[in-house]
Amino acid sequence: MSYTIYSDEYFMNEALKEANYAFEADEVPIGAVIVMKNKVIARAHNLTEKLNDVTAHAEMQAFTAAANYLGAKYLQEATLYVTVEPCIMCAGAAYWSQIQRVVIGTSDNKRGYSSLSENILHPKTEVVKGVLETECRALMQTFFQMKRENN
Amino acid sequence: MSYTIYSDEYFMNEALKEANYAFEADEVPIGAVIVMKNKVIARAHNLTEKLNDVTAHAEMQAFTAAANYLGAKYLQEATLYVTVEPCIMCAGAAYWSQIQRVVIGTSDNKRGYSSLSENILHPKTEVVKGVLETECRALMQTFFQMKRENN
Repeated sequence: MSYTIYSDEYFMNEALKEANYAFEADEVPIGAVIVMKNKVIARAHNLTEKLNDVTAHAEMQAFTAAANYLGAKYLQEATLYVTVEPCIMCAGAAYWSQIQRVVIGTSDNKRGYSSLSENILHPKTEVVKGVLETECRALMQTFFQMKRENN
Repeated sequence: MSYTIYSDEYFMNEALKEANYAFEADEVPIGAVIVMKNKVIARAHNLTEKLNDVTAHAEMQAFTAAANYLGAKYLQEATLYVTVEPCIMCAGAAYWSQIQRVVIGTSDNKRGYSSLSENILHPKTEVVKGVLETECRALMQTFFQMKRENN
């Protein structure tokens, strides 16, 4: 499917491509891209199994890659597109990055940061939820269904 | 000063050595070590300025290094010693690591994870606070005092 260029759906579709790479690598299929001035400056997918590292979430790698690209720590003019709602660790990193926008595919009612009663993102960070939600959720559901059937 | 070998003070002093490296490098002086069976398996200090990376907190690097050392993601038999109370990001990472104990030097009333109303660490993680508190706090105070005087 094609999406209007530079729309939230367009960039979420890029994050979904990353999530698909994770799926193919037998990782929990979550992908992320960071966009600034309509340019993807970082892309990553979950690699916790391959790297044996609980901190190797898509978002964490994307924050690091974006900062490397910019040569600067802060992402006040950037948007994170992530296929699944960030966990507390990743939302804590988003706070430090002061990222301008966080665009989320599907919610994570169990481990998502918004399960906390307090908002832990930066107060200036704008949040948009539910972009390509069906596609982002379906990928997760397929993954965990396959896992259950293989156990 | 010398501390009883393998005591919490002994290992916190190792974390303090790391914090001192951060101080000397003009980084916010926070250090961490991860210990398993009385052996330091990871040591790190804050490098957010040098690496231009808001995720480069001492604890995050230590989690990654410990997992690399063990070749395993989880740290259920390990203890994190950190000179300053972890932030929300680092506590979120500690949650995923399932680390057995977190030993903290001095509190961070502003950005520490315990400023949240909910406990975001793993329910099995034991927390000890105030080990070498005076030394850990003094290093932070000296750093920020110098920063103020130089601005």
